[in-house]
Amino acid sequence: MVPHRVPRWPWWLFWASPGWAQTACALRAGVQQRRWPGSSWGARRGCPSMSSRPPEVMLTQERYPVQRLPFSTVSEQDLATFEHIMPGRVSTDPAELEAHNVDWLRTVRGCSKVLLRPRTSEEVSHVLRHCHERNLAVNPQGGNTGMVGGSVPVFDEIVLSTALMNQVVSFDDVSGTLVCQAGCVLEELSRLVEERDFIMPLDLGAKGSCHIGGNVATNAGGLRFLRYGSLHGNVLGLEVVLADGTVLNCLTSLRKDNTGYDLKQLFIGSEGTLGVITAVSILCPPKPKAVSMAFLGCPSFAEVLRTFRTCKGSLGEILSAFEFMDATCMQLVGRHLHLACPVQESPFYVLIETSGSHAGHDAEKLGSFLEHALASGLVTDGTLATDQRRIKMLWALRERITEALGLDGYVYKYDLSLPVERLYDLVTALRARLGARAKHVVGYGHLGDGNLHLNVTAEAFSPSLLAALEPHVYEWTAGQRGSVSAEHGVGFKKRDMLGYSKPPAALQLMGQLKALLDPKGILNPYKTLPSRA
Amino acid sequence: MVPHRVPRWPWWLFWASPGWAQTACALRAGVQQRRWPGSSWGARRGCPSMSSRPPEVMLTQERYPVQRLPFSTVSEQDLATFEHIMPGRVSTDPAELEAHNVDWLRTVRGCSKVLLRPRTSEEVSHVLRHCHERNLAVNPQGGNTGMVGGSVPVFDEIVLSTALMNQVVSFDDVSGTLVCQAGCVLEELSRLVEERDFIMPLDLGAKGSCHIGGNVATNAGGLRFLRYGSLHGNVLGLEVVLADGTVLNCLTSLRKDNTGYDLKQLFIGSEGTLGVITAVSILCPPKPKAVSMAFLGCPSFAEVLRTFRTCKGSLGEILSAFEFMDATCMQLVGRHLHLACPVQESPFYVLIETSGSHAGHDAEKLGSFLEHALASGLVTDGTLATDQRRIKMLWALRERITEALGLDGYVYKYDLSLPVERLYDLVTALRARLGARAKHVVGYGHLGDGNLHLNVTAEAFSPSLLAALEPHVYEWTAGQRGSVSAEHGVGFKKRDMLGYSKPPAALQLMGQLKALLDPKGILNPYKTLPSRA
Repeated sequence: MVPHRVPRWPWWLFWASPGWAQTACALRAGVQQRRWPGSSWGARRGCPSMSSRPPEVMLTQERYPVQRLPFSTVSEQDLATFEHIMPGRVSTDPAELEAHNVDWLRTVRGCSKVLLRPRTSEEVSHVLRHCHERNLAVNPQGGNTGMVGGSVPVFDEIVLSTALMNQVVSFDDVSGTLVCQAGCVLEELSRLVEERDFIMPLDLGAKGSCHIGGNVATNAGGLRFLRYGSLHGNVLGLEVVLADGTVLNCLTSLRKDNTGYDLKQLFIGSEGTLGVITAVSILCPPKPKAVSMAFLGCPSFAEVLRTFRTCKGSLGEILSAFEFMDATCMQLVGRHLHLACPVQESPFYVLIETSGSHAGHDAEKLGSFLEHALASGLVTDGTLATDQRRIKMLWALRERITEALGLDGYVYKYDLSLPVERLYDLVTALRARLGARAKHVVGYGHLGDGNLHLNVTAEAFSPSLLAALEPHVYEWTAGQRGSVSAEHGVGFKKRDMLGYSKPPAALQLMGQLKALLDPKGILNPYKTLPSRA
Repeated sequence: MVPHRVPRWPWWLFWASPGWAQTACALRAGVQQRRWPGSSWGARRGCPSMSSRPPEVMLTQERYPVQRLPFSTVSEQDLATFEHIMPGRVSTDPAELEAHNVDWLRTVRGCSKVLLRPRTSEEVSHVLRHCHERNLAVNPQGGNTGMVGGSVPVFDEIVLSTALMNQVVSFDDVSGTLVCQAGCVLEELSRLVEERDFIMPLDLGAKGSCHIGGNVATNAGGLRFLRYGSLHGNVLGLEVVLADGTVLNCLTSLRKDNTGYDLKQLFIGSEGTLGVITAVSILCPPKPKAVSMAFLGCPSFAEVLRTFRTCKGSLGEILSAFEFMDATCMQLVGRHLHLACPVQESPFYVLIETSGSHAGHDAEKLGSFLEHALASGLVTDGTLATDQRRIKMLWALRERITEALGLDGYVYKYDLSLPVERLYDLVTALRARLGARAKHVVGYGHLGDGNLHLNVTAEAFSPSLLAALEPHVYEWTAGQRGSVSAEHGVGFKKRDMLGYSKPPAALQLMGQLKALLDPKGILNPYKTLPSRA
């Protein structure tokens, strides 16, 4: 799932940029280049026609050392069965399948020949029962906005899209509980509940495309995580279709239910490998009446940490985001995007967002915190925004870092969870380690959640630079008991990095759970579990 | 786990009460009588000596239709092995075992002959490896404060107590992450983190005795649930020893970690049937600087609901509890405990607690909400408290309902989750259904969480009254897609009620998970899963 806001400009902006050709050639395993796909995304945003699309993405099976497992291949009779289950919603059109075979980062590509668009969980159940019997592999797909190649086929897996499962079942405006099908688009759900004075407990850059079922399947983090916490706490119930077609209806709308094992938890973050989520019941918090933002400059990372601590104490319940970026990030958004730094140049910058139920009170709390932070030298300069336009402008400085990095050259990207007090150490150490081999080494991210986005840019892809980065970055993270995938998940690309964050006993139990729930391994194969498992 | 504050008066207060003898005789399956045990609890609170203890509790195997499974029995050689694993911490003293064989409600009693008190997860691992090889059943036990007979043996299961696993491993005062062994007592942890300006994300009446490992194993709810949510969201990591002795170390301290399946979730709420939790990593929220409370009278349940809705909107992020009780509850605390109603008599009362970071702001929000609530007729009278003593007094009205009910006669108790708008319907319907057969039918509970405590009192136990209540209450709850155990869990007593809240596919998957993780079924047998499974 996309962890920070996806910039809202069309892909041809990248396509036209001078650095594009160079970086396109350099795309390879484990290294992501952020760019809009010439897929249904682009089409939905009114992009130029397919004829001006960037060159084809290399097939995953050609780029990566991966072997097709002995699944059956789809026969004419299978197609007839699917057509019987969902008349008119079975596609074998290569042009239509293209967008479902390629991830939005354009780094992996499958060669599925069948796209199924069920409308109900019963249809999903019939499909999976048939695929289970026939040993046909299935790739469940939501909005296809994942970062780790988890949402597209690796070979010829059948694409089971939730796109037409987009019905809202109910919304309870006393409790704030929303029940809907898995294919509802996050932004549309946000709009719906906001009209009733609630908000979704998660917000992502990809909200215009991502499906709530995909969000849950990948345990999406995003911008509201600091305040409202994980989906493991916010999802109240799920309906899931298991590999053999069994419908597991745990779609309760209850905040409390201690009747046995909390089975839904198994499927949150299992990336479609244990079952297909077909409906979600989720708790929505009340909509804040006031939102404010402070953009501050800090003299060192130690002060960033002290600011975070002070801020948590002073703002307490109204703190809704605490993000940071280093000076190099700011220089890059300035150089490549011509965005001006709104405060004095500083080694670090923090963005603090508050959301509360009383604008006056929130302003007073924020004002008093800022006065203290300035007086005690935690921050050297700062600016405050309360109107939506200016808040958006300040957010853009943080959100557009990814774009600026893409324009800076070839990007090596890492998404790490680390103890908050060690969050920046790796960035500093890497600068020393890489020296002139790297163009830039930058760190930014969701400091409040202990989530670092570490990015290294270079003029072009270089195997020696990659060797200097990996496995060093993963080993360093493991040494801190960190996570090598904070919020992006595992998907296809990170399945062999799991050992850095999970002990062998955990990997073994993962394998056992997979074998229990999907004994033939037909659900989203080649993903989430180590390739040796 | 105990869901609301356990009254802090000694058990002999009950023991001396006139109604006691009558209700003690009537104790039977599925009906709980709240009372202090003459166990280590009593001893710890300086109660009278064991000689004045109430009569012995009937053995579970005599009271309930349950058959011992073909586990081995503990031999002298087993004892020698245990003694080798943990010298001096193996007990076979019947007097010492008594407190571990009987639940604190004094409704179930096992006949374990061995108590083990490991200090480390390695010791737990050695014990379980041995028990697994020898096919010896094990009853993991925390503070033994459960409500459903989950924490004591049914037959001669070995009691594996976490009492000596009480070390705090670390506390990070930037992130608020506490890592500790499973046997740490909740109240002691609260004290520790409060000294550092944090609070535990859960608070229970049993906090003086319950262990954090037991809290997690039973997915305890409690008084901070409305504000801080479920342990599924707050627990960051667990160390668990599996049935075969494998140590599963998922004890990370990271807020975000999407490296594969979130295995710890399996064990939260599995009541010690899938593994023994030996250590916990948990996220502590910052300590609020101000707490206030409003006690209000409402003219009808519709107004209680409207008050809740308004209150959520006005108080937003500072709302920390929304409890309700009906007029009969208030009459009973008045009659039996001589507590005075602090407001005009009303059909319903609500307790609203706020916790925030700014006393002045919180008071202003609460004041403005109350002004609106009074002016619009949502509430007819109210009183406000900000000092700790008076807040405690107001809380007592709600917390001591259980005690008042115990003094009213024989009590039939139900702990249900229901859609909040239907929360009181069952109480009204039951009054009509039972007529003069019931002395009182009352409803109270955690309205903010959709959690109703439904209690029916009668002069004495009556099979016909029970038949009028069950399965009617469970069927009605199932008809609302509610939960027949909101926060008390399943344990031994409710294992055959699961079908009212979980579909057959879910029960089947529960059984499969149990078989996967504990193929010999040695962990907490006769609990949590349906007896037919």
